Amino acid sequence: MSASPRPSGRAPDALRDVAIIPGFARHAEGSCLIRMGGTEVLCAASVEARVPPFLRNSGQGWVTAEYGMLPRATHTRGDREAARGKQSGRTQEIQRLIGRSLRAVVDRAALGEMTITLDCDVINADGGTRCAGITGAWVALNLALRHLMRMNVLKTLPLTGQVAAVSCGLVGGQAVLDLDYAEDSSADADANFVLTDGGGIVEIQGTAEKAPFTEPQFHELMVLAKLGTRKLFEIQRQAVEAA
Amino acid sequence: MSASPRPSGRAPDALRDVAIIPGFARHAEGSCLIRMGGTEVLCAASVEARVPPFLRNSGQGWVTAEYGMLPRATHTRGDREAARGKQSGRTQEIQRLIGRSLRAVVDRAALGEMTITLDCDVINADGGTRCAGITGAWVALNLALRHLMRMNVLKTLPLTGQVAAVSCGLVGGQAVLDLDYAEDSSADADANFVLTDGGGIVEIQGTAEKAPFTEPQFHELMVLAKLGTRKLFEIQRQAVEAA
Amino acid sequence: MSASPRPSGRAPDALRDVAIIPGFARHAEGSCLIRMGGTEVLCAASVEARVPPFLRNSGQGWVTAEYGMLPRATHTRGDREAARGKQSGRTQEIQRLIGRSLRAVVDRAALGEMTITLDCDVINADGGTRCAGITGAWVALNLALRHLMRMNVLKTLPLTGQVAAVSCGLVGGQAVLDLDYAEDSSADADANFVLTDGGGIVEIQGTAEKAPFTEPQFHELMVLAKLGTRKLFEIQRQAVEAA
Amino acid sequence: MSASPRPSGRAPDALRDVAIIPGFARHAEGSCLIRMGGTEVLCAASVEARVPPFLRNSGQGWVTAEYGMLPRATHTRGDREAARGKQSGRTQEIQRLIGRSLRAVVDRAALGEMTITLDCDVINADGGTRCAGITGAWVALNLALRHLMRMNVLKTLPLTGQVAAVSCGLVGGQAVLDLDYAEDSSADADANFVLTDGGGIVEIQGTAEKAPFTEPQFHELMVLAKLGTRKLFEIQRQAVEAA
Amino acid sequence: MSASPRPSGRAPDALRDVAIIPGFARHAEGSCLIRMGGTEVLCAASVEARVPPFLRNSGQGWVTAEYGMLPRATHTRGDREAARGKQSGRTQEIQRLIGRSLRAVVDRAALGEMTITLDCDVINADGGTRCAGITGAWVALNLALRHLMRMNVLKTLPLTGQVAAVSCGLVGGQAVLDLDYAEDSSADADANFVLTDGGGIVEIQGTAEKAPFTEPQFHELMVLAKLGTRKLFEIQRQAVEAA
Amino acid sequence: MSASPRPSGRAPDALRDVAIIPGFARHAEGSCLIRMGGTEVLCAASVEARVPPFLRNSGQGWVTAEYGMLPRATHTRGDREAARGKQSGRTQEIQRLIGRSLRAVVDRAALGEMTITLDCDVINADGGTRCAGITGAWVALNLALRHLMRMNVLKTLPLTGQVAAVSCGLVGGQAVLDLDYAEDSSADADANFVLTDGGGIVEIQGTAEKAPFTEPQFHELMVLAKLGTRKLFEIQRQAVEAA
Repeated sequence: MSASPRPSGRAPDALRDVAIIPGFARHAEGSCLIRMGGTEVLCAASVEARVPPFLRNSGQGWVTAEYGMLPRATHTRGDREAARGKQSGRTQEIQRLIGRSLRAVVDRAALGEMTITLDCDVINADGGTRCAGITGAWVALNLALRHLMRMNVLKTLPLTGQVAAVSCGLVGGQAVLDLDYAEDSSADADANFVLTDGGGIVEIQGTAEKAPFTEPQFHELMVLAKLGTRKLFEIQRQAVEAA
Repeated sequence: MSASPRPSGRAPDALRDVAIIPGFARHAEGSCLIRMGGTEVLCAASVEARVPPFLRNSGQGWVTAEYGMLPRATHTRGDREAARGKQSGRTQEIQRLIGRSLRAVVDRAALGEMTITLDCDVINADGGTRCAGITGAWVALNLALRHLMRMNVLKTLPLTGQVAAVSCGLVGGQAVLDLDYAEDSSADADANFVLTDGGGIVEIQGTAEKAPFTEPQFHELMVLAKLGTRKLFEIQRQAVEAA
Repeated sequence: MSASPRPSGRAPDALRDVAIIPGFARHAEGSCLIRMGGTEVLCAASVEARVPPFLRNSGQGWVTAEYGMLPRATHTRGDREAARGKQSGRTQEIQRLIGRSLRAVVDRAALGEMTITLDCDVINADGGTRCAGITGAWVALNLALRHLMRMNVLKTLPLTGQVAAVSCGLVGGQAVLDLDYAEDSSADADANFVLTDGGGIVEIQGTAEKAPFTEPQFHELMVLAKLGTRKLFEIQRQAVEAA
Repeated sequence: MSASPRPSGRAPDALRDVAIIPGFARHAEGSCLIRMGGTEVLCAASVEARVPPFLRNSGQGWVTAEYGMLPRATHTRGDREAARGKQSGRTQEIQRLIGRSLRAVVDRAALGEMTITLDCDVINADGGTRCAGITGAWVALNLALRHLMRMNVLKTLPLTGQVAAVSCGLVGGQAVLDLDYAEDSSADADANFVLTDGGGIVEIQGTAEKAPFTEPQFHELMVLAKLGTRKLFEIQRQAVEAA
Repeated sequence: MSASPRPSGRAPDALRDVAIIPGFARHAEGSCLIRMGGTEVLCAASVEARVPPFLRNSGQGWVTAEYGMLPRATHTRGDREAARGKQSGRTQEIQRLIGRSLRAVVDRAALGEMTITLDCDVINADGGTRCAGITGAWVALNLALRHLMRMNVLKTLPLTGQVAAVSCGLVGGQAVLDLDYAEDSSADADANFVLTDGGGIVEIQGTAEKAPFTEPQFHELMVLAKLGTRKLFEIQRQAVEAA
Repeated sequence: MSASPRPSGRAPDALRDVAIIPGFARHAEGSCLIRMGGTEVLCAASVEARVPPFLRNSGQGWVTAEYGMLPRATHTRGDREAARGKQSGRTQEIQRLIGRSLRAVVDRAALGEMTITLDCDVINADGGTRCAGITGAWVALNLALRHLMRMNVLKTLPLTGQVAAVSCGLVGGQAVLDLDYAEDSSADADANFVLTDGGGIVEIQGTAEKAPFTEPQFHELMVLAKLGTRKLFEIQRQAVEAA
């Protein structure tokens, strides 16, 4: 790994500055604002004492997510999805991904018949919003579950581990970690990795933006992702302790 | 004015703590986060070099607004309007009000054929979100116009004054200023006043929530509104200077 | 009050010719066609023996309204909202206003768990349709409630009074009553007043269409509104007696 | 033809009382209220100086229709289609039928590149609303075209004849003309006939509501339809002359 | 009947080649692919053990239909209705027709409280898709009902007969049977006949595409329709036996 | 690789029977029906001589895809998306994937300013529909491009290679190739691989359905995918030659 400097001056294997500020949404059972460089996502966990029809009387809970982007989170203003009357395919794809990622570390039987909805709303966008959403949502979820324990609704924390996500990509022939918008738009390929602190893979989404990429390149990206998420797990733990 | 203490302990004619933090939306030409007690609204101004069809070739600009509330801005989670596929009547009513209010202090001929869209997104809601939106939107608008002046797009600031808004209400028989959610839900009447620093009335919306109210009561509310907006004008000016 | 003659030749404090024809919608429990000059609104009250979820088992009834405009009620044909697939913000704002106005004079506990829906459909539009809708809807509501008394569903009339509405405005510097379309489009300010026969204020909506207006101007408008609604209350009573 | 008396006491071959009142929609280029017994439909013709894309530069005009029913036109209140956000299949089927029927008697080359939209809105419904709509729409269209002649937009009337419609049905084994709602709901079969004053067939829609019907029965219905429309053509002519 | 040869070279009273291939939709309780010349429609019958609200506790079943066209079933690609977000008026009209036609030969009391949905999806379109849909749907329905008999859900086949449909039209002055797309687009009039094997009429829809047509012309079309459906009934029976 | 037999009796590295039948959609410029075991997808390529706004005057073409599933393609009938009024998140995710996958092997400059839309409609579903869609869409695209060459619209084939897709998964602890529905619903993890005949990776989507999976497991899946797509490339070539 070498060469062509990144627009931000970061080393190829450097995350952007990451901060997780717990408690940003005052009414939510758990919440945080996660900041990864110029990207800011507000993650809020809401608890409801009911489950979707397909889980009724199953004794199992549900975790789901919704994703949105404020119209002026981006460089030029985007349409407000509520005004347009429907969510884009991109939005739906992202919120399905966030929900699946969180469910992978939840013991839904231990949760019981409750639904936790994670709202991930992008306040400022500079690349990697879906990954920031997953990483922040885990903190919001954790805080909401701890709240339920304090309320004596839960006896134990129904989490099997931590989950975090990071994007990696091939930019100018080089594998780099945690793409910002400038890199993302010029990448030859990018991949989002959703990993657990136990070393497990929850989700991999790799896409060739221009030409197909090779298996060795893909492995380089995975090495970076493991490195990056290791740091994110540490920051998640600090945020939860600080809350 | 006397008697029954407000839930917050405020005097009947006291505003909540107000703060206006400029620049919260990094990509917007002008923006601020306005905080009025537990209510926080992110206001972002976006400039486009085109006008709606009815103004083409008129030499006049346009100012409009959109309003939204994050699903967990409130005590219990609300539906995401984008997911439901339409904006509620309440949302549409509010965004029409914000747009009208701002236009009342804009010299649209001096602006020229540009559109400025004010996005007011409620991050945390504790009553008075539409009034906070108007007061904050004026700051975002002002900052965006100053940006256009620095860019040499505008020679002069196409504003004829300041506009700010505050709610007043009759709670437990007493006229009070700047209702929070607890007061708003128990008020006998409430009224939103949109006023200019020149003493003009831009919009008045008074509603009897329970029984009809009287003219003298209505005048009491207006006195409070003039008092409250006077302070808001000062805070707006400080925010613009600080930016 | 003096000077510049109104397009219609009316005195500044003169209503247009008003007629309320009861029974226009044959199937409705109560209905009327209200005509204010060139404006005609068909108001129909429909009774259902159930309430919205938030009132179930509360012992209280509900009164709500829907508003529509036939596509060719106006000078040039407008889109049919059903074809466009959604109601405009203006439509929603108006129907919410009509519902609130009527509820202000209904004793919902005395009504019991029934819903009355007021449909206000504009057949011909020449300004002031929302005010005509409120004034006519009260008659339709009253007739529907009397029908329920005749059917022995209600023992007493669950109304605490009359409600009527009128628009006033500043046109060419002069305060005038009951604006028609020509005046409405050239007004500097206009205000809708929803008042009760007991002298109470139910709703005030004042809007500066061009420049802000002053408090004394606003009071002039209110004086006219009280004058105008006094006449409307009389016409409402005659219509109910005639039915 | 004999026997079982109709609920209304009419002879099997008797139309209901028919009245066509021209000019009901004040702003429309042509309009009428058509009343057939308890059914009332407001028909308004709107002229626009443009055609749909598929006719541009063809030298041909277009005639189309929209249909609606006020929520309380019926015995029990129906949903407002604008509120529900879409037109029912029934509504679309009817408005397509009305448009086709009118186009069958319009010389679209003589009309030139203009669009005439016929709005048929049901004020009170007691069966046969689509037929009343067609019969009334022809009058509204005729009046609009005459208006265009008076304005010197058209030199000649671009109509090739009259068109009117009536429903017939098999009720209790008997063929009857012009079904009201009570008959319509109990009919074994019903058929709508859209015929021209020249004896031509524009549209036939016959439907077995219960069991299939026979060819001779179908011919009986057609005999009645010719009889009924003959009277409607006369009433249409009187209405046009009266206007 | 003579003269001007049809584009396909068929005799005026000749159907196109018809084939009905049972079992095309592998999961459906009954299905077939019907091919009429270049038109191919996949018909699938789905059984559910519940009825719409208006039939609950009536002891009666329901039969309904949905219709769709693959975007590239036609000469130029059409919009995907799912992407556009609504079904066209034409689609709704056709699916209502198919449902009514099938119900005319179903003994809904013998069916009991079940719903059978017929999905008719056009794979390739060359005219007459709604008629092919009805003819094929009867086969799919029949097969689904036989499946229910084999499953001991039904004791007897709740069908009162066969139903099939064919279009006829006036093309170049001549009455012809079973129009293909080329004929359909140039026809002066066309009519769809839905008939039963017992000689009954279920539905007739005749439309003048250009000028009105005459009664004798209409009778000519009906003669052809009876001839055509007689052949279709035979092909339906063969398909059911082959299954 | 060993052990627990697959429900279908296939070896872990065996594809289902695959057939690609060219020309199924008669009007499309290129089309095929691809069958992979019980899954059948109709792929049709439509050519239009225009590009989306963001590519106008770029000299580059566009390739996009739409995906749908017939309501009764599945074991129990699903809602028709056109009737429900919107496409599910799953549908949008899949059609975005198909479009991206095809674009990865298209030389869009060589294509020029044309759009090719691939419609992938599932006739019968038994797992792996998105992968079958991609593999079949490449054939339809290829045939459409050859058609454009025969029409002298293109001089050369603007394809840089073949693209095909296959799903792999961990079922009962074993890595298996080309999951059918039974395996898909019980898999611990599944991954879709979109690969090129040149050995490149276009897209990888791996998802832990239950617990996270490991890197070695992921590599096993990739080995299978390369094996499977090698066979699919061969079948694609045969289909194109046969056409």
